[in-house]
Amino acid sequence: MAKADRDTRPKARLPRGFADRSAPEIRRVAAMIDTITQVYERWGFEPVETPLVEYADALGKFLPDEDRPNEGVFAFQDDDEAWLALRYDLTAPLARMVAQNFERTPKPYKSYRAGWVFRNEKPGPGRYRQFMQCDADIVGAASPLADAEICMMAADTMEALGFARGEYVIRVNSRRVLDAILADIGLGEGDPRRLIVLRAVDKADRFPLVEVAKLLGPGRKDESGDFTRGAGLTEAQAETVLGLLDPSAEARLSADLVAIGEAVDRAGYGTVVVDPSVVRGLEYYTGAVFEAELTFQTTDDEGRPVRFGSVGGGGRYDGLVGRFRGEDVPATGFSVGVSRLAAALAARAGAAAERGPVIVTVMDRDDVGAYQALTARLRAALNTGGTVVPVEMYIGDSGMKAQLKYADRRGAPCVLIQGSDERARGVVQFKDLAAGKVASRAIGDRSEWVAERPAQHEVPYRDGDVSAIVAAVRQILS
Amino acid sequence: MAKADRDTRPKARLPRGFADRSAPEIRRVAAMIDTITQVYERWGFEPVETPLVEYADALGKFLPDEDRPNEGVFAFQDDDEAWLALRYDLTAPLARMVAQNFERTPKPYKSYRAGWVFRNEKPGPGRYRQFMQCDADIVGAASPLADAEICMMAADTMEALGFARGEYVIRVNSRRVLDAILADIGLGEGDPRRLIVLRAVDKADRFPLVEVAKLLGPGRKDESGDFTRGAGLTEAQAETVLGLLDPSAEARLSADLVAIGEAVDRAGYGTVVVDPSVVRGLEYYTGAVFEAELTFQTTDDEGRPVRFGSVGGGGRYDGLVGRFRGEDVPATGFSVGVSRLAAALAARAGAAAERGPVIVTVMDRDDVGAYQALTARLRAALNTGGTVVPVEMYIGDSGMKAQLKYADRRGAPCVLIQGSDERARGVVQFKDLAAGKVASRAIGDRSEWVAERPAQHEVPYRDGDVSAIVAAVRQILS
Repeated sequence: MAKADRDTRPKARLPRGFADRSAPEIRRVAAMIDTITQVYERWGFEPVETPLVEYADALGKFLPDEDRPNEGVFAFQDDDEAWLALRYDLTAPLARMVAQNFERTPKPYKSYRAGWVFRNEKPGPGRYRQFMQCDADIVGAASPLADAEICMMAADTMEALGFARGEYVIRVNSRRVLDAILADIGLGEGDPRRLIVLRAVDKADRFPLVEVAKLLGPGRKDESGDFTRGAGLTEAQAETVLGLLDPSAEARLSADLVAIGEAVDRAGYGTVVVDPSVVRGLEYYTGAVFEAELTFQTTDDEGRPVRFGSVGGGGRYDGLVGRFRGEDVPATGFSVGVSRLAAALAARAGAAAERGPVIVTVMDRDDVGAYQALTARLRAALNTGGTVVPVEMYIGDSGMKAQLKYADRRGAPCVLIQGSDERARGVVQFKDLAAGKVASRAIGDRSEWVAERPAQHEVPYRDGDVSAIVAAVRQILS
Repeated sequence: MAKADRDTRPKARLPRGFADRSAPEIRRVAAMIDTITQVYERWGFEPVETPLVEYADALGKFLPDEDRPNEGVFAFQDDDEAWLALRYDLTAPLARMVAQNFERTPKPYKSYRAGWVFRNEKPGPGRYRQFMQCDADIVGAASPLADAEICMMAADTMEALGFARGEYVIRVNSRRVLDAILADIGLGEGDPRRLIVLRAVDKADRFPLVEVAKLLGPGRKDESGDFTRGAGLTEAQAETVLGLLDPSAEARLSADLVAIGEAVDRAGYGTVVVDPSVVRGLEYYTGAVFEAELTFQTTDDEGRPVRFGSVGGGGRYDGLVGRFRGEDVPATGFSVGVSRLAAALAARAGAAAERGPVIVTVMDRDDVGAYQALTARLRAALNTGGTVVPVEMYIGDSGMKAQLKYADRRGAPCVLIQGSDERARGVVQFKDLAAGKVASRAIGDRSEWVAERPAQHEVPYRDGDVSAIVAAVRQILS
């Protein structure tokens, strides 16, 4: 390749709000999703996936916190001029899929999926434009038993992930309660103020009630001076809405909410609780709404103790499939916020050390075949069970010092070294890197360290017999 | 929801070239990728992923079969007018990532990833605009040992998936052979005819040599009458290029190819073979090129026997990371065509029957709590080991006949039925659906069938003790 001119070279960078993923994160999320979907499978849900691209009109205009059409979505035109868009959640594509295959779909239809979704919004700390969701949905069941099942399965999921009762809660409410209140105060179906009220009430877990009241009334100026327009309710109207959030007032329960409460009580799910303050910021919910919250304490950016908070939510959306069919189709579902939940698990577990490969170094470059053979034998012998033990031969061009540095950067548990002397004697040098680190901290003097070679010893290796090396590797891995 | 007007309703459909994925396909591909990545892990590769969206200029113009800039890519503008694009492969984003984190990346850098890629092209049968790739790459190793390692790992992958020696072959060549030939006949670096020659030679496994010759010369008209412009070589030039494909001629081997051949021979990988006809249709390869081919026979659309063909490929791309840095960075890698390989595995294995959940039917709707309890106990008792046994209670509104039909459509292995009579006697009716289907085919007369109730028997269920039911389920699952 000719040297590219510095000015014409592309810059190696990512668009704002997109991120690469490292091995620990990938492994952590994969293990978590595996645990979650095993619970879903046990409850009779099957995996079904949709593509990442849909017709924009099939996704609809249901984005949270967005009033303008297509705002918030990554959209582009196909060669026939039709607008395509990256999906912004997993619910709208599921609704499209069920509507498209309605007659041949068994009902109730229970399915789950994990996948990437995209929001064309201003990114911020911990707020990405591509993120993962993991959803479970039941389409075709109008019964509150379906909502109850989703809540109980969410509780099972939290416990399968290792959260004990008392560390999480699944809060349930019904939009019908709020709908009745809004109708009472004159905000009927189709009133544009309804969505503003929804979003205001949804903020009650983060904002003091007086700030929520401003959002119900004329509007609110935040710390940065930005003004958010309010719903414009009168004080009396706002007070009625806020009454919903008053824990001391007698709760108004709709029939579906009573039935959900009975079903979860009967099944002994004490961690699924009715909470009239749950509303969710999405307009498409038509009945039950749920939120999974972690109640244990963690610390916020300023080091203050806070509850970890919401890690997922969902609700009943009887209109979403119906949008395509012209009549309501009952549907209810739950979505896990994968990054948020993974962060919670990581916060509890602490960072697990990544363990790198066993590394066979190359001393005599002319006899690379011998190192290849040792590597292949060791890889075969160490990978007979279910656990993977990575083994690699160093394939770069550098000398021994750089090879040991490479092993260290890769987090190798141990390194094998064989020169002509070792080969003649039928041994390899076995270097335990973790033990070596401990020892080198204890021994200050370099010449003493080199002389003693802590954590390095000879292991027999003759006629291709790797059993002694396998034993040494297994010992330090255990 | 108000009934939507038929004319304003969105249509439930997918854009051309995109597809939903069903449970069997998702499970099959997940198991396959699990097997592949376990091999990669054993060789010391670690998972690393990039997002699906990149700056268009970071991806470069390296699309196969596309000469026009950005043609073939789904691109859209960010709010700062910068062009973003969905990735079209996993190599270009990896190159961007390594260049971006160059100093803190250990070298050689061995990583793998599976993910969706997108091509804005005309879809066709089995040709989608969103498809999955699974790649492994080594960056920072110039040695032919790195290319040899990729080839041997590809061979291990095929064997881990169940293909025997003789059913697959990893073919290796080096672009340096072709580069030397092109230089000999006057097509130096930067000559626009080089890419046309590459693509022509790449078609040699599908086209007769006389058709390849047309593509090297003036051009070729296909069956539909479409004309593809050729490289415009003279007959003598074309003959020199075609000499490369002549198996009887003495092969011209470049130094890297000799070294790769030696390394795989030493390690006893007889299924990795040097083949001078492999070129790959991508311009960015700078050295070794590989292709994994399944050699067993299958039938084409017209039922004629054909070799299954290519299921993956790759090569050395020393210029891709260097694009960002202004100097070459050695890199080599391999990409599995996931759908193609999954199709090969499915063709060999036949379709495995999906097994649905054990279904607890609901007869007395007033006593739904009893069915809930039975379901929960059974789910807990059946899911103690590693295998998932789905159990669900029917949560729709329909009667027993529809519930049994639902169980049938879900592929339920068995169904539990309990009315007040059964409850009083401390039993449930256990219905083996698979056995029932066999029996109903054997018994023609319906009344006889109803009287005998084949494959249905009573199982004790008293005081919440599900052990007899668990035993009955385990028996039919085994």
